[in-house]
This record gives sequence, C-alpha cells and structure tokens, in this order.
Amino acid sequence: MRTACLTLFTVAAALWIASAPTRAAETHRFVPERFYNTYSAAHPPALRIKPGDRVVTKTIDAAGVDWNGKSVGTGPNPQTGPFFIEGAEPGDTLVVTFEKIETNRAMAYSASLLAPYAAEPTAIASRVDRDAKRLTWTIDKAAKIARLDQTDVQPGGLQIPLRPMLGCVGVAPARKEAISTATPGPWGGNMDYAWLNAGVKVMLPVSEPGALLFIGDGHARQGEGEVAGTGLETSMDVEFTVDVVKGKAIGWPRMETATHIIVLGSARPLLEAFQHATSELQRWLMADYGYTERGAQTFMGQTTEYEVANVVDPAFTVVAKIPKSLLRR
Amino acid sequence: MRTACLTLFTVAAALWIASAPTRAAETHRFVPERFYNTYSAAHPPALRIKPGDRVVTKTIDAAGVDWNGKSVGTGPNPQTGPFFIEGAEPGDTLVVTFEKIETNRAMAYSASLLAPYAAEPTAIASRVDRDAKRLTWTIDKAAKIARLDQTDVQPGGLQIPLRPMLGCVGVAPARKEAISTATPGPWGGNMDYAWLNAGVKVMLPVSEPGALLFIGDGHARQGEGEVAGTGLETSMDVEFTVDVVKGKAIGWPRMETATHIIVLGSARPLLEAFQHATSELQRWLMADYGYTERGAQTFMGQTTEYEVANVVDPAFTVVAKIPKSLLRR
Amino acid sequence: MRTACLTLFTVAAALWIASAPTRAAETHRFVPERFYNTYSAAHPPALRIKPGDRVVTKTIDAAGVDWNGKSVGTGPNPQTGPFFIEGAEPGDTLVVTFEKIETNRAMAYSASLLAPYAAEPTAIASRVDRDAKRLTWTIDKAAKIARLDQTDVQPGGLQIPLRPMLGCVGVAPARKEAISTATPGPWGGNMDYAWLNAGVKVMLPVSEPGALLFIGDGHARQGEGEVAGTGLETSMDVEFTVDVVKGKAIGWPRMETATHIIVLGSARPLLEAFQHATSELQRWLMADYGYTERGAQTFMGQTTEYEVANVVDPAFTVVAKIPKSLLRR
Amino acid sequence: MRTACLTLFTVAAALWIASAPTRAAETHRFVPERFYNTYSAAHPPALRIKPGDRVVTKTIDAAGVDWNGKSVGTGPNPQTGPFFIEGAEPGDTLVVTFEKIETNRAMAYSASLLAPYAAEPTAIASRVDRDAKRLTWTIDKAAKIARLDQTDVQPGGLQIPLRPMLGCVGVAPARKEAISTATPGPWGGNMDYAWLNAGVKVMLPVSEPGALLFIGDGHARQGEGEVAGTGLETSMDVEFTVDVVKGKAIGWPRMETATHIIVLGSARPLLEAFQHATSELQRWLMADYGYTERGAQTFMGQTTEYEVANVVDPAFTVVAKIPKSLLRR
Repeated sequence: MRTACLTLFTVAAALWIASAPTRAAETHRFVPERFYNTYSAAHPPALRIKPGDRVVTKTIDAAGVDWNGKSVGTGPNPQTGPFFIEGAEPGDTLVVTFEKIETNRAMAYSASLLAPYAAEPTAIASRVDRDAKRLTWTIDKAAKIARLDQTDVQPGGLQIPLRPMLGCVGVAPARKEAISTATPGPWGGNMDYAWLNAGVKVMLPVSEPGALLFIGDGHARQGEGEVAGTGLETSMDVEFTVDVVKGKAIGWPRMETATHIIVLGSARPLLEAFQHATSELQRWLMADYGYTERGAQTFMGQTTEYEVANVVDPAFTVVAKIPKSLLRR
Repeated sequence: MRTACLTLFTVAAALWIASAPTRAAETHRFVPERFYNTYSAAHPPALRIKPGDRVVTKTIDAAGVDWNGKSVGTGPNPQTGPFFIEGAEPGDTLVVTFEKIETNRAMAYSASLLAPYAAEPTAIASRVDRDAKRLTWTIDKAAKIARLDQTDVQPGGLQIPLRPMLGCVGVAPARKEAISTATPGPWGGNMDYAWLNAGVKVMLPVSEPGALLFIGDGHARQGEGEVAGTGLETSMDVEFTVDVVKGKAIGWPRMETATHIIVLGSARPLLEAFQHATSELQRWLMADYGYTERGAQTFMGQTTEYEVANVVDPAFTVVAKIPKSLLRR
Repeated sequence: MRTACLTLFTVAAALWIASAPTRAAETHRFVPERFYNTYSAAHPPALRIKPGDRVVTKTIDAAGVDWNGKSVGTGPNPQTGPFFIEGAEPGDTLVVTFEKIETNRAMAYSASLLAPYAAEPTAIASRVDRDAKRLTWTIDKAAKIARLDQTDVQPGGLQIPLRPMLGCVGVAPARKEAISTATPGPWGGNMDYAWLNAGVKVMLPVSEPGALLFIGDGHARQGEGEVAGTGLETSMDVEFTVDVVKGKAIGWPRMETATHIIVLGSARPLLEAFQHATSELQRWLMADYGYTERGAQTFMGQTTEYEVANVVDPAFTVVAKIPKSLLRR
Repeated sequence: MRTACLTLFTVAAALWIASAPTRAAETHRFVPERFYNTYSAAHPPALRIKPGDRVVTKTIDAAGVDWNGKSVGTGPNPQTGPFFIEGAEPGDTLVVTFEKIETNRAMAYSASLLAPYAAEPTAIASRVDRDAKRLTWTIDKAAKIARLDQTDVQPGGLQIPLRPMLGCVGVAPARKEAISTATPGPWGGNMDYAWLNAGVKVMLPVSEPGALLFIGDGHARQGEGEVAGTGLETSMDVEFTVDVVKGKAIGWPRMETATHIIVLGSARPLLEAFQHATSELQRWLMADYGYTERGAQTFMGQTTEYEVANVVDPAFTVVAKIPKSLLRR
C-alpha cells in the first residue's frame, strides 16, 4: 500500500540502492583533455564510474576555450566526457545530481542580437555581421555579477547577477545515432535551460550500456529562451554524483529541485516540444504519484507551469513543471 | 523609491493627468444584464466612464451562468461591457488596474482531458465524449481552495489553492473587425493568462473611440497553458480603475505587477506568439527604459523570462517578462 | 458498377433542383460602386439573386483601383458584393461556378521581395523599404503575357504567361464575426489559390441567411504560396452562376475542376491548414464517394496531392486534392 | 559577360568533364547483402565507383524484406550502399541520375490510418492498434496497378496505378553525425517524395570524402504528404549513374526532370521546410540562371509551385519547383 509520499520512483531507487550497499562511493577528479562534438556511443569512455560516485571536473566554453583562456576544443559546445556508468543499461534511468556549477574564469562572451526565430522577422532587417558582434563580459564572482562595459552597445553598460548553469547534459542517443552537440533531444543534450543550476537532480533515459554521460556549454547566466542565441558563455567547475534507477524507462529528461518536478521536451516546432513535456509529465504523475489518467489530466490543467528553455537550437526546449507542494500526498 | 526611474511612460501619464486635474474620480456600480460574444465597436456602450474612474462590476462564467447559478448569457466567454472610456482615441493606450478579482459563488466547472494540441497526438486515443466529462468543483473561499470530490476521476479527489483571474480583458479590435471572444489578439481578449490576478495593471492599444472595454471568463484557478481547455470556470466580483495614456501606441497587451514588466503576444503557431511578445518587449525597453536597439537585445538575451499562457484558444498566448529589479536605473 | 454511386451530394442537388423547376434563371449585370473590407453579414446586400442565376460583374484590385485606373476603394482586398442568395440558409452549401475571370486593364502591380515567413529569416537581411518596391507590370492580353520592363530589377526584364484568378471568394462567417478581407478561413475569403481560375466550381459553407457572397482580389497571375506577398494585382471581369445545396453542411471550402476534387484548409501554422484540408477531404470521400473511414484513409495515403496556396496571409492556405480518375466508380 | 544560357553550373560541369575525358564508364552489378539504418561516413563503403559509372542494384523494403520475401534487414528503411564515389570531396555536388526504379516482387504493404500529424487531432479518436492494421497489396506489374483486395477495409477493394519511387536517397551528413534513416535533411535521406521516379536527376551536397551514397525505401506508389505514414512499401530494381560537380556547394537536395527544376527542403515545422526550399531555389536561380536577388524574388512570387512530400517523418519535406519553360533563356 502506498502511504505518505513514498512514490514508486522512490521505492525503486530505494530497492536498487539496497542491493548495492557495501561499496564506498568514490570521488573522481577528472581534468578533460579531449572534447566531443557529437553525442554518440562510438566515443571511447573518458572515465568509468559507479553509481554513487562523485566526479569533480571542468567544462570548456561553447567555442572551445578553457579556464586558462586557451583554445582546446572546437565549437559547437565541445563536451567533457563521456563518463561510462557501470551497470547502466538500456531501459534504465541515469540520475545526475549537480552539487556544483561554478564559473572558473573572469571572461564570458555573448551575442548581441536576437536570434533568427526568436523575434518578428520584420524586426530583424538590421541583422548583419553576426560574428563581429560577439561581446565580452567580465565575471565578477565576488560581487556575483556579470558586467558588460562596452558603452557603444549600451550607454552606461550592463550588469546582471550571475546564475551559473550548464547548457548541455546528455547521454548517448538511441538507434546508434551520433547527434551534434548543437541539439537537444530525448537524450538530453543542448537543452539550454536557464535553471539547470547547482542543486538540481537531472534524470536521463539510458540507451547504451554505460549511458555515456557528456556535459558542457556552461553559461554564467542565460535568459529563458536563450533568445540572443548564447548565454554568457564561459568555462565551469562542476561536481556531480551519479545514480542509476534500474528498469525504469523514461521518455524525456526530467529534473527535480527543492520545489518542483520538471520535464524537458525538445522538438521543432515549439508546440511539439510543449506536447512532449506535457505528455511526459502526465506519464510521470501516473507512474510515480498515484494519479489516474483522468485525474492527472484534470490536475495538470489547473497546476502545470511552463517555461521556454530555448528557441535557438536545432530543436527547441519547453519545460513543464509542477510545484511539489501541490502534488498528492 | 524609484527616482531616476521616471520612464517616458510615466512622464507621459503624468503630463496627461496634469491636464485633467480638477475632476473627482467616480465609482460606478454596474451589474451587467446583457453579454457579448464578439469584441466589436458595433456593440452599444454599456457604461460611459472617465479616466480615473473606478468600476465595481461582475462577470459571468464562460458558459453564461451567473453568480446565482442562472443562465443569462451564451458561450463562449460572454463579456461584461463594453465600457466606453471618454477621451480614449485610436493611438492611445488604455490602462486598466484591477483592484479586485474574486470568486462570488461556490461552484466552478472544468474539463477533465488535455486539449487536442496540448499533448502528443498519439496520447489522445482515449479521448471520447468530451462534453460528458465536465467536472464540478467546490470553491471554498474560507479555506482558499477549490475541491473536486469526484473520486471516480481521482481516488481521494483533488484540492488546490484558489488563484482567481480573468481569462478575458479586451477592447474593440482594429479594422472594424468583430472577433469572437474565444480568441486573443493585439486587442487583448481571451488571453487566458493565469497570472492576470487582482493587483495587476493591464495596458491595451486603443483602436476605436472610447476603446470599448470588455471583461469576462473568470477562473478560480488555472494552470499555465490552460492545457485542459478550461480553468475552474466561475463568476467573479471585479473592481478596476481606468486611465488613458494619450498618444502612446502599443502593439500588444502589456502588464505591470509589483515585480515584473510583462508582454502578452498571441498567434498561432506558438513560436509566432513568442516572437510578438519578444519584439514588443524590445520596443518597450527602447521606448521607456533607455535601452538602445543592441543594448535591449543583448540584455534580453540574458534576462527575459517566458511563460505559456494558453495553447488551446484559436490563437495561443506567450508571455515575455523581465524582473523590474534588473532594469536599468 | 457503382449504381449507388449517386452520391448524397448529387441526390440532394437533384432533389433541390426538382423543387424549383419553373423559374427561368436570370442574368444580372452588376457594376459595383461600394466595396467592403470585412466579411460580415452586417453589410447590406448589394444584389439579391436566386439559385441558378448568373452574375456579370467586376472586381477592383487589392489596393482599391478599378478598371479605369481610378481609386474607388481601400485596401486590403476591397470586395464586390455582398450577393444575397435567396433560399440559402445556415447549414446549406453555396456553389459558385465561375464562367469568366478575365483581366480588364493593362496594368498590374506586384511586390518585389519574398514575404517575411516565406523564406529563411537569415536570408532577409536586405529587406528594406517594402512599399517603395511596388513594381508595375504590363498586361498584354493579346499575347497572353504579363511583362515587367524594369531592367533595374532584372536585366532584360521578365515576362510570364497570364493565368487570371480571384484571390478572394467568401461568404459571411459564422458566430456573427466580421473578419478582415486580408484573411481566409472556413468561410473562404483571401485564400489566394493560384488555380481558382475560370471554369472552377467553388463550394462554401453557408452561415448566415442569404450566404452573403463577396469576391475580389484578382491576380493576372500568381505563383503558389504567393511568396512575394502579392500576385499581379489587377481588376477583373467576372461571370459566375450560383446554386445552393440544401441541408448539406461542409466544414471548409471545396472546389471541383475537370480533373480534380479539391479542399482548401486555412490556418496557422501551415501544418494545421494541411490538417484541415486532409480531414475535410476524408469527410468528403466518405460522404459522397462511398469510402469507409479506413478505406478513405488508406486510399488517401497513396493518392492525395497537396499544394500550398499562400503562406503570407494571416491564415495560410493548403490545398488537398485527388484526381477524379482515381476515385471509386 | 554572361551570354546565352551558359550558367555557372553548366560551366563547372563542362570543365570537370573536360578534365576527365579518357576513362570509359563502367557498369557495376551490385546485390546488397548488408543494410544500414543510419546515414554516416562511419560505415565501410559497399562499392567504390567513379563519376560516369552506372550501378545496377536492388533495394529491400522499409521493414527489411527483400525481393524473395526474405527478411534480411531491420526497419526503418534499411539502405543499400554506401557507394563511395571517387573524387567526391566536401563542397562538391553529387549528381545521381536514376535510369530505373522498378518493383521486383508482387507484394507491397501499407498502413491504413492517417498519421498523427497529418489530420485534425480531434479526428483521430478511433486510432487504435496501429501495427495490426498493416495491409497487404498485390502489385500487378502487367496491368500497372496495385490492388488491395481486403473488402473489410473497403467494400470492393481498392486499385490504383503504379508509380514506383525511392523514399530514401542520401549521403553521409555533415559534422560527423550519424542520422537515422527515418529522417530527411540537407544530406537527402528519407524525403519520401512521390515524384522521385525513374528519369529524375538528384543532386546532393557532399560532406565527406567519397560522398557515401545510400538508397532505399522503395514505394510502388505513394501519395503526396505520405499521410498514411507509408507508401506501398516494396523492394526495387534500381539503376543509376553518378557524376560529381567539383567545387559546387549546394545547401539542400535538388532535382531536375524533363519539365522542372526542383528543390527539397526538410525540417519541422512544415513552414521551415517550405522556407528552406524557397531560399535554396532563390540561390539556384541567382547562381545558375542569371537572376538578380530582386529579379529572382519577383519572378518566384509569380511562378513557383509547391508540393508537400511528407508530413510524417521526423523532419517534413516541402518541394519548391519552377517549370523550365518559364526560366530566362
């Protein structure tokens, strides 16, 4: 019987953890030297880790520049990894909890124009010379702000609070595909969700043995929609822990924060990303929170919240979420 | 205190108010008896009011049932009004500040299925007998919750906090059109934005003399996206004050709350609603907050937030907003 | 052999015609003097006609200029009509057979740029000063060509065969709406279908007593998609005959030519226009041609043809059609 | 100076051919034994051929069944190839002329329901048990028809003329991606264009050395849009000749027939596929036919024709084409 808030998911996770109690979790320090531009199981694992292990690592920026300002990879979105998670098999769910996502250099860059599909097409007549307009921001970690001092762009410059995030978290996709790191999909990837910050738990569907986890594309801050086509692109210090839920297949990336359960659907057109997020959220409510089909749909109609993560990548990403406080207990 | 924060808009409003200082604002109590199903300047004004005036009125539910449970109008979304605002002319902006939006009966109804375009089409095979599935909720105003007791829909029923809103706020559209109250557009209308609650200021573009303001379609609560196709549909007590900003033309409805400036773009596909909201927000930043074209675009890329108001009306509505705390001072 | 092949449509038409055998059809010569910019039953009938009657009339161009080069109406798409068809009631189908659609002056104008949503947004950077780029073509009716002599636009100029059509054929819409003549919908309207030429039969759903038929927006020629935002805009001599099929309700405009049955669905996004055309075609096959639901879907999968009528109006139009030679006999 | 009709394309082709005059073209007979489900340069070449060479080969059906009714591959769309074309380098254009596309067995299968996005979502309530509804057709090559004898689907059955085509023609994609053969894109792939029949010339952009040509997914006939989600799926005898145009980069697949020049754009949403086709056609007119930017746009507005190739694959395909008879001479 299902009392209190023990969801099926929680039960499954508990059972799995119970079955592997004896091993002490390890912490791996991994400084990447090789970077990848496709999500693919064809790349050799950079590191083999076990469920429960922690990884302390770094990511370079979307154009391939590292924490020393050195160009060590090529765009778009060169990835750290892949991390091979022992015991992860197709049909399982990989759980990645990010303890730290923190900028590790003083420079970030951004675009300075709204991206082609983000604004009315008649409003983009002046869009020219996009590459020349890359702007350089200063990351002031002590003051917790990013600062643009180019007064030719904006008299007085701009300054905004930091909110570090990873644009890319993904695993090897299904069907033996190798997919550009420019794109998000069911495997995660370049979702560019502004609220994928330190503290979140990310769940991804495993399609290949070992899952093959990749991360990258850190932003010191990014607006929702990523409407300028970039965040404040920079390198990051990242720490995360992995877990595997055996035999639990999910259709799209999920997240959990202190306050919400979250689904990230990716597709074009925007509405289809919305549809995937909505349907996956319904499946989650039914599988783990005791809702009937009709109960879930009725409840979602009055409680779901939506955000637009990006409208600039080859697939767009829409987020559907529900406050945990409203879920059945 | 907001000192340098006197925006152009504020200045314009101040000038306008300065030009009409002597008249005392009136409060009008208006109980509607006739309801409209199109936004159109062809309907005779129900009440003539002046800038600064307050209106205390009521709205009936989306199917035409009033606060006594009596059917007095016909769906969809029968409107209270139109209110003719003296001095409002094409090219002005009408400002409506809602002091009160409050449920005034104990019953609300909702649908119990996700709407056709809100979820994956392959997930809707079981969609049958839509009309038969209208659910009845109890509004418990003292406890501040809405309650669904039908345990055949969901064992244990459902209960969620109230968050009263108006689905429809609109004026007569441009080009002498008469548009169904099922739809939102540049004139406002059936935007179904879950956060159009008491306390918000709504700005609408005036296209006809007197603006012709209509309101209706109250929801005791609604999720974002209105993915079930309805909120908790009910009647409302509403109080609002009107103002006019002379000579200020806006392209899409805008809102202001204690924390955000907000734009509501409406269209299909969803991306085009997003584009309208984005471009109108840029125009607002440039006109009223001192941003250059490039400065506005750069700033928006790292700060804009998006919500999906509805994906179920003939036009969908996307909200773009920015926290006031991030705006230039 | 298909004896039961008298379709419902045919039967209904036969019955109707049988019930009105004695009256001789009239020919009305009507030179319009007043033009409308909305489809609406609120406009007074310009002429009352009966089923079987023929109308010989004229249309002015999309900007309001007539066959003498005189500006007598205002854009967009000022309409000739409305024609009130005696006996047409909501739920009937109006049938309009165009015997003649012919240019009646030597001048046409067109735009010279691809419209905002017709081409890749990154390819429209040079789009400036749209109004200034109106081009003037010469209609050479003897040679059956239209000619652009502006060699600054294209060295050597351009010349293409005439193919006269009407961009707009519509009736008063449902729900008492008044809709801009810029837009197509279930009522017909600005569908901008390049193959609505002399010889076609157009069927429209009747929503108001008398149907209220409007026509206008003649093009000496137009490409599919109307991707430049205009055809070769000019005035026309038009002759048509009307009929009414009593008690036959259709969902979207239909056409019949010597070779095809045709449905025109209009909406944004483009896919939704496609969906309406597809579903209406299925309903047609089932109602009039003896297909089962599954038979219709199976057959359509291997035989349907699609064209894009326009991607530039507020709603886009997609055409689904099937060669008559493939239909069941 | 540009005299007469010597386009750049023609010049380039002429130069290339001039540089390799001495070798006699070979004919290769290739019976495939291994089939691929991704477009990728990672697969080893099945055959190395030279420009000018002819290949006589076979394809199996979309589910992997060959001309003997034997299951030899797995869905979706197992491909024959890849063919490595000597001398083809990134930045070149591969030209494939199909001399023969002909059914080689008596059985084809099809679906019997409209696909999820092809029809109105409210019209698909009865969609159940999709897999069970695979229908079997008889290919009568002598009578040139396909016949469905299942009278439970349609009383009297169905019969329609054959029109054999290949759903898939593609090369290795750019950026080292490996893409499922379910999908079309700039590399070609699963475009499902009903008019890719014997006699057409297909042009594809080369992204990898040798191009790596794959073919498959033959249909005895298919409607436009492929709205049932399948054509009449069967195996094929195929003969084609290859050529390479050195140094000519194209953005999307192109075709040429006796009557038209044709571009195939693929994306979701449908409008974006339309946009790619339109913009690529403009680039073609400017590069090879002497049109200015403005001349091309003006001309396209009055002459372009559009078809919808598919709305059922992960990316949709739209065709833009122009009759050769209208092109400048």
